[in-house]
Amino acid sequence: MRAPLYSTVLLLLLQGERPSTACSGGCVKQLTVCVFGLRWGRRSLLSRQLGFRMRSLRKTVLLAILVSVVLVLALLHSWPTRAYTTVDVWQRPGPIVERHLEDRLPEPDQRLGNIPFHVRDNVASLLARNGCVCEGESGGVNLPFAQLLFPRVSAHPLHTAFEASELEEMKRRRAKEYKSFQKRSQTPADVLIVAEANNPLQYPTQGVEVRPLKTIIIPGLALHNLPRDHYSINITATLGTLNVAAEVDGVKIKGDGEMHMTLSSSLLPNLNRQLQFVTYTNTLFHPSTADTVQFETEGHQAVFSIKIRHGVTPKLYNTGSKGDYNVSALVTIATKTFLRYDKLQDLIDSIRRYYPTVTIVIADDSENPKTISGPYIEHYIMPFGKGWFAGRNLAVSQVTTKYVLWVDDDFIFTANTKLEKLVDVLERTTLDLVGGAVREATGYTATYRQTISIEPGEEDGDCLHMRRGFHHIIQGFPNCVVTDGVINFFLARTDKVQQVGFDPRLARVAHLEFFIDGLGSLHVGSCDDVIVNHATKIKLPWVSQSESDKIYAKFRYPPASSDATHTKNGLLFFKNRFQCLTHN
Amino acid sequence: MRAPLYSTVLLLLLQGERPSTACSGGCVKQLTVCVFGLRWGRRSLLSRQLGFRMRSLRKTVLLAILVSVVLVLALLHSWPTRAYTTVDVWQRPGPIVERHLEDRLPEPDQRLGNIPFHVRDNVASLLARNGCVCEGESGGVNLPFAQLLFPRVSAHPLHTAFEASELEEMKRRRAKEYKSFQKRSQTPADVLIVAEANNPLQYPTQGVEVRPLKTIIIPGLALHNLPRDHYSINITATLGTLNVAAEVDGVKIKGDGEMHMTLSSSLLPNLNRQLQFVTYTNTLFHPSTADTVQFETEGHQAVFSIKIRHGVTPKLYNTGSKGDYNVSALVTIATKTFLRYDKLQDLIDSIRRYYPTVTIVIADDSENPKTISGPYIEHYIMPFGKGWFAGRNLAVSQVTTKYVLWVDDDFIFTANTKLEKLVDVLERTTLDLVGGAVREATGYTATYRQTISIEPGEEDGDCLHMRRGFHHIIQGFPNCVVTDGVINFFLARTDKVQQVGFDPRLARVAHLEFFIDGLGSLHVGSCDDVIVNHATKIKLPWVSQSESDKIYAKFRYPPASSDATHTKNGLLFFKNRFQCLTHN
Repeated sequence: MRAPLYSTVLLLLLQGERPSTACSGGCVKQLTVCVFGLRWGRRSLLSRQLGFRMRSLRKTVLLAILVSVVLVLALLHSWPTRAYTTVDVWQRPGPIVERHLEDRLPEPDQRLGNIPFHVRDNVASLLARNGCVCEGESGGVNLPFAQLLFPRVSAHPLHTAFEASELEEMKRRRAKEYKSFQKRSQTPADVLIVAEANNPLQYPTQGVEVRPLKTIIIPGLALHNLPRDHYSINITATLGTLNVAAEVDGVKIKGDGEMHMTLSSSLLPNLNRQLQFVTYTNTLFHPSTADTVQFETEGHQAVFSIKIRHGVTPKLYNTGSKGDYNVSALVTIATKTFLRYDKLQDLIDSIRRYYPTVTIVIADDSENPKTISGPYIEHYIMPFGKGWFAGRNLAVSQVTTKYVLWVDDDFIFTANTKLEKLVDVLERTTLDLVGGAVREATGYTATYRQTISIEPGEEDGDCLHMRRGFHHIIQGFPNCVVTDGVINFFLARTDKVQQVGFDPRLARVAHLEFFIDGLGSLHVGSCDDVIVNHATKIKLPWVSQSESDKIYAKFRYPPASSDATHTKNGLLFFKNRFQCLTHN
Repeated sequence: MRAPLYSTVLLLLLQGERPSTACSGGCVKQLTVCVFGLRWGRRSLLSRQLGFRMRSLRKTVLLAILVSVVLVLALLHSWPTRAYTTVDVWQRPGPIVERHLEDRLPEPDQRLGNIPFHVRDNVASLLARNGCVCEGESGGVNLPFAQLLFPRVSAHPLHTAFEASELEEMKRRRAKEYKSFQKRSQTPADVLIVAEANNPLQYPTQGVEVRPLKTIIIPGLALHNLPRDHYSINITATLGTLNVAAEVDGVKIKGDGEMHMTLSSSLLPNLNRQLQFVTYTNTLFHPSTADTVQFETEGHQAVFSIKIRHGVTPKLYNTGSKGDYNVSALVTIATKTFLRYDKLQDLIDSIRRYYPTVTIVIADDSENPKTISGPYIEHYIMPFGKGWFAGRNLAVSQVTTKYVLWVDDDFIFTANTKLEKLVDVLERTTLDLVGGAVREATGYTATYRQTISIEPGEEDGDCLHMRRGFHHIIQGFPNCVVTDGVINFFLARTDKVQQVGFDPRLARVAHLEFFIDGLGSLHVGSCDDVIVNHATKIKLPWVSQSESDKIYAKFRYPPASSDATHTKNGLLFFKNRFQCLTHN
């Protein structure tokens, strides 16, 4: 198909515009148009360009109108839909499919409805409620160190981040943005499908995929009917066409190359052999979607999805030399600094004692940035006070090694800070990130493990639940557990951290927001045997604060009613669509 | 369950460590352990910590050994597996499921094998080959402007990026990294499952999801058997337990709360009512996986997946005031500059003529960076020559608005550069990115539309195919099309661009690598009616190159055999696992 196209079509090639060779009908039209366009004789390049576009546009628009008249709009309520703004298709299941799906949702008929049952509270209470409720724990012991010894769960409604006057507008905007988000993120592959019982049809229910605009054989189709005179099956698709890769004797084929194909035969074995050659070709382009295919014979229907998507393109990193872990080839250390060059230099010196050639990336939004020099040091200057997460995002955006180690600029490496151990965890498990432990001057060592879960809510938003703790210990790594959030000392796969990102909208205090954004993407671990020291934060009364310490404190620990708190909770409310945060 | 836990367990609370309250059996064990631990009397904090861990570890390890003995390793060939390194589970389907799946893969029995068929070449040729072949187009007309008028497809094997001496080692490393990647990215939800015909079981084949460690009712389960004395069904899961939310009279329940549950009754309606209350609780934590559930009755089996994952947390942006598009609230302009401050200033001045308050983010890796000042300008200084994609990644990492507009530092805004039009496209479609057009001094306007597809290969890698052109025109936007790659002037959703990222390993020449990395994630459009001018690149012989122009040219247009080309093709080979690139 390609050869004739290239040798006969003389498009306006300087433009380099040409619809993909995958489109069959459209190409022929444009072929004709182009050849005609050339016979016009000499004209200015521009008007020929315009002429060509006008003609092909008109034809394409006519085709669009014709096809869109044929399609029917889908039901809206509770139907995951995707506005598929192409020439002629809205990506929603057609009417026949919906009716059938509706039939399949389990509805207790009269007989079943009358059968007595007794609710099991311990199980029923585990089921999700309709919407979530923003409540903490009440009661508990009222001792001096109560919160420390018996941390109660407190609940924080997030709408309080906004003034009463702006709240309605914020809710309205959030709902609008959320609706667009849903259109973009839901696919027909998530719709509930229930397989009909006693169906003579055999068909694939999972695992059928095709790359966009490509062709596959649909596996597993067959008909296991009782003997009869004549057998007939229909297959219907909405985002592609059906065909056969081979023709079997004794089978009549109708509609091959179209979205609705019928195969019929009086010989069941022949029909089943023919069914093994049925192909699906995706014709309506979308980079990531699914087609809902109907497969039916007299009296019975089956519905299944064909995922239409590119494969997942890997992002692999070179690991350096064979043998032991080459930390300099595998790891880049990333940090952000602000007005604390003395602490930063202490950090760098301590790193160099153990890892003389590991690259250190420093994001710096100090007011009058100093030069930080040294081999394997990359220093980035940001606008003054641009912010904490902006700096974190900048630093990780520059990493070119397989792993990135996050450290705060006031950490100190010691002999216990064995990065090889953390590398070992990520090399030998499927974890994406593993945290270590931070030791304070007092000797107290923290891992700050947090489990995070989200309880779906309704229009008001979801509920975010954070609890100290972990899920389980990791086999083979007795000092390590699986959790959802960790302390600010962790090794992670660079591609995963870059994919989740640190939201630059968080200017000041923020930490777990990264793990909230990473929920579902990051598989997080925490090991307590890799320890970094924390340069003391204890404000000793007889030590006067330096000027830079004072400015630092002003930015780092803003007063409770400042914009920082607003930004944190306001973001949770708007960006992530939460109504409530509970934690202990 | 929470209240007793908090009020009776005195764990080593300064550590703040506590397994999540979602684990039931484990919690009781640790509760006992902790209470016992306290009765030891005073000991050092450290040894108490160790003691507690040792005891619970021992019990957990015993449990692990017990459960792992039960599980059998899955088949390796063509079975997507995920190494689930937790206490006791490797995330692979168990033996019974595999045998059943194997039975279901269509194998023509003797009768079907003998039925004659005739291959349809035009369809069969569309099917994917086993592995891809690196070949371009041969022949074609040999005219002066041949490549321009009849762009032939050329094929580029990518292993040539490496010296022969290092190629074997690179292949070995790449294969190892790819294997780990596959373990992390495949899930049981992608396995092919074929539904058995004439199965009296009714069950859900798609759309069943549970959040990690949560509980749901499994929808759609039923038995539609012919009348008999006694009906019995078994349900088996591997990553969670089964139970019932309510007990129905006349139904015997065995194994409730375990991974294998049996329901039996002599009354079919009662059994079906009971089946409407079956619950699944995920107990083995993983942030994103799927459980393969077997549902069977005498003589028949059904297999389906329950997806275990957090919901997709939205990342919504505030859009500013109501009404018309507020470009300053919605868009941030991002660019990278290197030694071309004069051109950069021209760009800024031209932007300001039309958009006086839009934020401009500038990543700068010039050798002696100048200060760029002005309102709504953010200037970032990078290490000298750090690189093109590193700079792009930096700039977009700092954007806090819903959309980001990429421009090169030598563009000039004109009255035709109406950003509102591009915003309109992204606001009203599900596209993630929309490119504009760049006009050269000659008047020639380019959109550089490219379609990209990947043909899967075998151990040698996949084949990457890029062709000029687009997929189709967008309904409602007659000047816009859908494609896979565009020119370096585009508006995009900030969260999607940050998620795909610009790989900082690409130091010099690179462009489409961003779109290759974005394949499958980005839905890309291109409109030719939003035009930006390109400050001329024509090297007029009588105009002497300035010093900075010369240095710029040295970095920008490296000689063919330099590292830059190596990095581009070497990266395609290693990072994305391609063996071949074809393009026209």
